[in-house]
Amino acid sequence: MNVVSYRPRPDDLSYTFGGRPAVESVTPGAVLELYTEDCFGGRVRGTGDLPSQVCEFPYLNPVTGPFHVEGAEPGDTLALHFVSIEPARDWAVSTTFPHFGALTSTHTTATLQPPLEEAVWMYEVDAERRTVRYRARRGDFAVEMPLDPMHGTVGVAPAAAEARMTITPDAHGGNMDTPELRAGVTVYLGVNVPGALFAIGDGHCRQGHGEVCGTAVEAAMNTVVAVELIKGVVTPWPRLEDDRHIMSTGSARPLEDAYRISQHDLVTWTASLTGLDELDAYQLVSQGGEAPVGNVCDTNYTMVAKLPKAYLGDPDVYDSAHARLRALGEEYLSR
Amino acid sequence: MNVVSYRPRPDDLSYTFGGRPAVESVTPGAVLELYTEDCFGGRVRGTGDLPSQVCEFPYLNPVTGPFHVEGAEPGDTLALHFVSIEPARDWAVSTTFPHFGALTSTHTTATLQPPLEEAVWMYEVDAERRTVRYRARRGDFAVEMPLDPMHGTVGVAPAAAEARMTITPDAHGGNMDTPELRAGVTVYLGVNVPGALFAIGDGHCRQGHGEVCGTAVEAAMNTVVAVELIKGVVTPWPRLEDDRHIMSTGSARPLEDAYRISQHDLVTWTASLTGLDELDAYQLVSQGGEAPVGNVCDTNYTMVAKLPKAYLGDPDVYDSAHARLRALGEEYLSR
Amino acid sequence: MNVVSYRPRPDDLSYTFGGRPAVESVTPGAVLELYTEDCFGGRVRGTGDLPSQVCEFPYLNPVTGPFHVEGAEPGDTLALHFVSIEPARDWAVSTTFPHFGALTSTHTTATLQPPLEEAVWMYEVDAERRTVRYRARRGDFAVEMPLDPMHGTVGVAPAAAEARMTITPDAHGGNMDTPELRAGVTVYLGVNVPGALFAIGDGHCRQGHGEVCGTAVEAAMNTVVAVELIKGVVTPWPRLEDDRHIMSTGSARPLEDAYRISQHDLVTWTASLTGLDELDAYQLVSQGGEAPVGNVCDTNYTMVAKLPKAYLGDPDVYDSAHARLRALGEEYLSR
Amino acid sequence: MNVVSYRPRPDDLSYTFGGRPAVESVTPGAVLELYTEDCFGGRVRGTGDLPSQVCEFPYLNPVTGPFHVEGAEPGDTLALHFVSIEPARDWAVSTTFPHFGALTSTHTTATLQPPLEEAVWMYEVDAERRTVRYRARRGDFAVEMPLDPMHGTVGVAPAAAEARMTITPDAHGGNMDTPELRAGVTVYLGVNVPGALFAIGDGHCRQGHGEVCGTAVEAAMNTVVAVELIKGVVTPWPRLEDDRHIMSTGSARPLEDAYRISQHDLVTWTASLTGLDELDAYQLVSQGGEAPVGNVCDTNYTMVAKLPKAYLGDPDVYDSAHARLRALGEEYLSR
Repeated sequence: MNVVSYRPRPDDLSYTFGGRPAVESVTPGAVLELYTEDCFGGRVRGTGDLPSQVCEFPYLNPVTGPFHVEGAEPGDTLALHFVSIEPARDWAVSTTFPHFGALTSTHTTATLQPPLEEAVWMYEVDAERRTVRYRARRGDFAVEMPLDPMHGTVGVAPAAAEARMTITPDAHGGNMDTPELRAGVTVYLGVNVPGALFAIGDGHCRQGHGEVCGTAVEAAMNTVVAVELIKGVVTPWPRLEDDRHIMSTGSARPLEDAYRISQHDLVTWTASLTGLDELDAYQLVSQGGEAPVGNVCDTNYTMVAKLPKAYLGDPDVYDSAHARLRALGEEYLSR
Repeated sequence: MNVVSYRPRPDDLSYTFGGRPAVESVTPGAVLELYTEDCFGGRVRGTGDLPSQVCEFPYLNPVTGPFHVEGAEPGDTLALHFVSIEPARDWAVSTTFPHFGALTSTHTTATLQPPLEEAVWMYEVDAERRTVRYRARRGDFAVEMPLDPMHGTVGVAPAAAEARMTITPDAHGGNMDTPELRAGVTVYLGVNVPGALFAIGDGHCRQGHGEVCGTAVEAAMNTVVAVELIKGVVTPWPRLEDDRHIMSTGSARPLEDAYRISQHDLVTWTASLTGLDELDAYQLVSQGGEAPVGNVCDTNYTMVAKLPKAYLGDPDVYDSAHARLRALGEEYLSR
Repeated sequence: MNVVSYRPRPDDLSYTFGGRPAVESVTPGAVLELYTEDCFGGRVRGTGDLPSQVCEFPYLNPVTGPFHVEGAEPGDTLALHFVSIEPARDWAVSTTFPHFGALTSTHTTATLQPPLEEAVWMYEVDAERRTVRYRARRGDFAVEMPLDPMHGTVGVAPAAAEARMTITPDAHGGNMDTPELRAGVTVYLGVNVPGALFAIGDGHCRQGHGEVCGTAVEAAMNTVVAVELIKGVVTPWPRLEDDRHIMSTGSARPLEDAYRISQHDLVTWTASLTGLDELDAYQLVSQGGEAPVGNVCDTNYTMVAKLPKAYLGDPDVYDSAHARLRALGEEYLSR
Repeated sequence: MNVVSYRPRPDDLSYTFGGRPAVESVTPGAVLELYTEDCFGGRVRGTGDLPSQVCEFPYLNPVTGPFHVEGAEPGDTLALHFVSIEPARDWAVSTTFPHFGALTSTHTTATLQPPLEEAVWMYEVDAERRTVRYRARRGDFAVEMPLDPMHGTVGVAPAAAEARMTITPDAHGGNMDTPELRAGVTVYLGVNVPGALFAIGDGHCRQGHGEVCGTAVEAAMNTVVAVELIKGVVTPWPRLEDDRHIMSTGSARPLEDAYRISQHDLVTWTASLTGLDELDAYQLVSQGGEAPVGNVCDTNYTMVAKLPKAYLGDPDVYDSAHARLRALGEEYLSR
C-alpha cells in the first residue's frame, strides 16, 4: 500500500485554490494521511480570542495542500475518498464574526446596522463517546450533541487560470461546508490544471444545516484520504457518493441558483446513469430526491442534491471508483 | 369525542386563503375528518390529460375549507394536529407544467426560451405495502418508492384583509409544500381574523425536497385533523412540532430569505423556550439545526428550520398542545 | 367634457387592491379629479410623529378608490393618463421605519441585529419654485432639490380573486414606486375583474431611484387622471408611455427577476410593435434600452424597462391612446 | 507631459485580474495611450462567426495590461481618468451566446431548456456622425443610435492573492459593464497589491442598461487614460466621478445586493464628504440619488449609485483628483 503522510508547517498552509505550486506529489492509488488546521489557523483557543483580533485577513480558512496528482490532466476526474476524519484535539471552537453569517448583514447584504457582537464558544470534544459539548456563554445551559466530523473545504485548482480564496465554493469545490462530506464518502472533482492540485481543510466536529452563524464546531483534524484518478471523464460540479446515495452540488447566489445547479446536475447525471430521457429523470429526482443544505453564509451558497442509488437500479457510477476506494480505505484501516 | 366530518362538493372548494366565508364551524377540541381533492381538482387522470388543457386558471390547488374555529381571535394561535393522511385513490399523478418548476424559466424568472414539454406521470399507490410506483414515460424503467403522505397546503386567512391564491405560501401558511407536514405533526398558525378560517389541501403521496419539477405525487386524501386553540399567544410564521423536533418555517424569495426567516424564528423561539440569550441560541441552532427544504418552485419558496427538542432539555412547547393533540388523535384512531 | 371630482373621507380610503366594492363609477373618456392622502394617512406631521407610534398596521399607504370603469371586462386594458399631480400641502415628509428599507434587515431579510433608529424628516414644498427643501436632523445642512411629483401606487383589482395590500406591487400594479409615473405619462393596466376597480395613492414630491430608505418625499396630492378603456387587448404587466418612450414594468424578488420580467415584456412588445422576431427585438432592446430602478424596498421590487419610440419608427401604440389622452388632458387644463 | 503608448500583441492580452506580471510600468501623472481589443478578441467579424466556434474559453474578454503604477501600495487609491475612448474600427459587433444573458437560463440559473439561438449582429460605426447602425437579421429594419463609447472592464489585481477572470466584476473592479464609464469620467480603485496592476478592456460603442442579451456593441478601442495615485486613502469598491456626480458601484448577486453595496458606499461616502451622520446621509441619498443599472448578465451583477455633487455643496472629493486629471486630459487633447 502506498501511504503518504503530510503535516504542514504554518508556512506551508494555503489560502487559495490555484495560484501556488504543489507541496507534495501523490500517485493515483495512494492513501494520504493529512493534518488540517482549523479555520482560524488554531489561533482561537479561548473565549477571549476574538477572531477579528487574533486572525489576520486573508489568512483564514487554511487548507493543507495543494497536492499534485500524477497523470491528472484537464478533462479528467479526481476521486477522493475520505477514509477517516478525526479531531486532532480535545477541544473545538465556534464564533460569530462581524458581518459574517446568515442572520446578520454582511459586506454584500450591506446595511447601516452595527454588527452583531463577536463571541467565541469553546466545545469539549470527546472522541471516545463521540460527542461535543455546547456551553452557553451566559448562564449554565449545556448540552451534548453527536460528534459527526466532516471537512468544510475540499477542492482543486480552478479553471481559467483563476485563484480563489479558500472561503469561496464554486465549480472547483472549495468551501462547500456540507455535512455530507464525512468519512465514508467519495468526492469527485473535475480536473482543471495538470496535476489537479487538490487541497483539504476546514474540519468541523459537526455542523448544522447552512452553518447559520458562519462557523461550525471548528477543529484541526487528522484525516486519511484515498486518491484515484478517472481519466477522460469530465465532472462539471463536485459530486459525492456514499454507499447508498449519489449527490451533486451547486454553489452560487442566490440560494435558488445553488439548488438549480445541484438539481440540474443530478437530473442529467441520473439520465446518463439510467438511460432515461431528461424529462423522465427530472420526474424521478422530483419525487425521490433530497436537498441537504450546505452553507448559507459563504461568498457562494451551497446546496446538495441527493438520490438513493437503489432508485436507479444501483447503477455503475464512475466505473465503481467508490467501491474500490472504500475497499482500499478498509484495507488501510485494518493494517 | 367531538368528531366532525366534511366532504366538499366541487363548488365548495376554495382557491384562496381569505376572501370567502367559512364552509363549516368547529370547536376547539374537535376532530375533523376531511376529504381533500388533488391539486388538479381531480381532472388529470391519465397521461393524455395535460393540466394546461383540462384545468382552468385560477381553479388550481383547491383547498377544503375554510373552517371557522369558535373563539379564535387575532393574536391567538391555532394548533392543527394531523392524525392521519391517507390516499383516497389507488393512483396519483405528477406533471410538468409550462413555465412552472425549478429547472425551467417561469413567468418571473422570465426568459425567451420555449417552455419544457408538458407531460403527465401516473403513479400506482399501494396503501397496504406503503409504496408508490414510478414509471418512465419513455422506456420500461420503473421503481417503487415509499409512500409518505403529506399536505402541501395548510393555512389560515391572511392578515391585513388580504386574500391570497392557495398556491402562495407566506406568513399565513398556504402552499408550503414541506414533506415535514405528515401525520403525527402539529402545525401552529397565527390567527389573523376572527374564526381563523383555516383550510387544507394539496395532498402528496410523497415529495422530493424542493418539489423541483413543480408537482409532487399528487393525490386526493382522506385526512383527520385534531384542532386546538391557544389563546393569547402570537405565532409569527407557521411552526411545526413532532414528537422529537420543533420546526419553524419561512416562505419568501430569494431562497436565502426563506432560510433567514425560518432560522431567525427558530433562534428566537429557542431563546424563549430555554432562557438563553439570542446569541447563545444562535450558536446552538447553528450546530444542532437541520434545514429541510420545502418548495423551490412556488410563488414564494419555503424552508424549514428544525431542532431536536432534546437539545433544549425537552421544554414545554405551546403549553404541551402537541402531546394533548397526539393523545386525542390516538384516542380517535383506537375507537 | 365629463369631469368627475372625488375626495375621500378617511373611512373611504382603501388599503388593498381587490376585496372591496367601488367608491364611484366612471365612464371611459372621463377626467377624474382626485385627492390622495400620503402614505402615512397624513398622521406624520412633525419630527416627533414616529410612524410606528402614530400609524397602525395595516392602515398604511391608503389609496383613493377603487373606481369602477363602465364596460371594463377581464381581457381589456385600462389606460390612465396623469394630467397633473400637484402637492396638496406646503410640506412633505420622509422617515425611516423599523426593519423597512434597503439598507436594513427586514422581516424577510431577517437578521438578529436591532433596527435602525426611526426618524422623521420634514420637507418644505415650494410649488411655485418647483423645489423641495431637505434639512438634516443633526447639524444645519440643507439643500433644495427639484420638485418632481409622482404616484408610487396605482393599480387595479388583481386576478384570481386575490386582495393584496396596497404596499405590494405585482402584475396588477400596486406600489411600484417608480419616478417614471409622473404627469404626462399614460399607464396601461390589464383588467382582471369587471369594472377594473382601479385606485391611486402614495404621492411623492420626489423620489430617488430605489427609494432606498423605504420612503420618498411623501405628500398628499391633487391629481387629475384621464381614463380610457381599450377593449379586447391584454396587458400582462403594467406598461407606461410618455411622449418619447414606451416602458414595461416588472415587480418580483429577487431584483433580477423584476429586471427579467420588465425586459422580457419590452422585448416581446417591441417585437409585436415592429414585426421584428424576438431575437432581433432582444438585440435592439439590449443596445437601446434603459432600466430605471423603481423600488428596492417593498414586498416586491420593481424595475422599469424603457425604450425610445424613435428606435421603433414611432409605431402605433395601443391604438394611439396616449396621444388621445394627452389631448384630452390639455383640453382639460386649458378650460 | 509624460505620455506612454502601449499596443498589445495578441499574446500580451490578459484574461485575469491578478495572477500575472505587469506588461509595462507607469508613473503617477502619466497619460497612457492604449489599444484594447474587443471582447471576442477581434475574431467575430461577420454574421457567420459564431463566438462559440471562433472563440475559445477562457480566452474571452481580453484586457490590455496589467500596468504597474510606481509607488502604489495596498491601502492607496488609484485614479484613472478616461480622457478619450474612440472606436478603432468602422464596425462593431454584438451576439447572443448559449446560456449567457439575462433572458436565458445560464450555467447557474440552470434549467433543462435548450439555449437560445446563437446569433451575430454587425453594426456600422460612424465616428464622425457619432452613430452606430443596428440592422435586424431578419427583415430590413434598421435604426441609428447615438455612439456613446465606454469600457466595460477596468480593474486592478484583487486582494487575498486571488486571480479572477476578466468577465467577473467585484471589489477590484473588473467587468462592471456600466455605461457611466465613458470619456470624462474618473475611476477610483482601491490598491490591493504593490503596483496596483490595472488593466482595461471590453470597449462598447454603446450599451443598454443591464446589457440584457449579454453583449453590447462590442468594439476595439483607442483609449487615453490619465493616471494618478492617491496615497493612504482606502477605497472599498470602485467609485466614479464626473463633472457633476459622484458614483459608487457594487457587484454581487442577487441584484439587490449589488444595489445595497453601491447605496451603502454612497451613503457612507456622502456622510464623510459632508459631515452628515449616516442617517441624515441615508435620507439625502434616498431622495436625491440615481441608480443606473450596470450589468445583469455577468458572473456578478453591477449597480451604480449616483448623486449630484451640487446636493453635497460641491465637496472636495479625493483631494480634487478629478479636476486635476481632467485638466491634464484637456492639456493632452490640445497638444
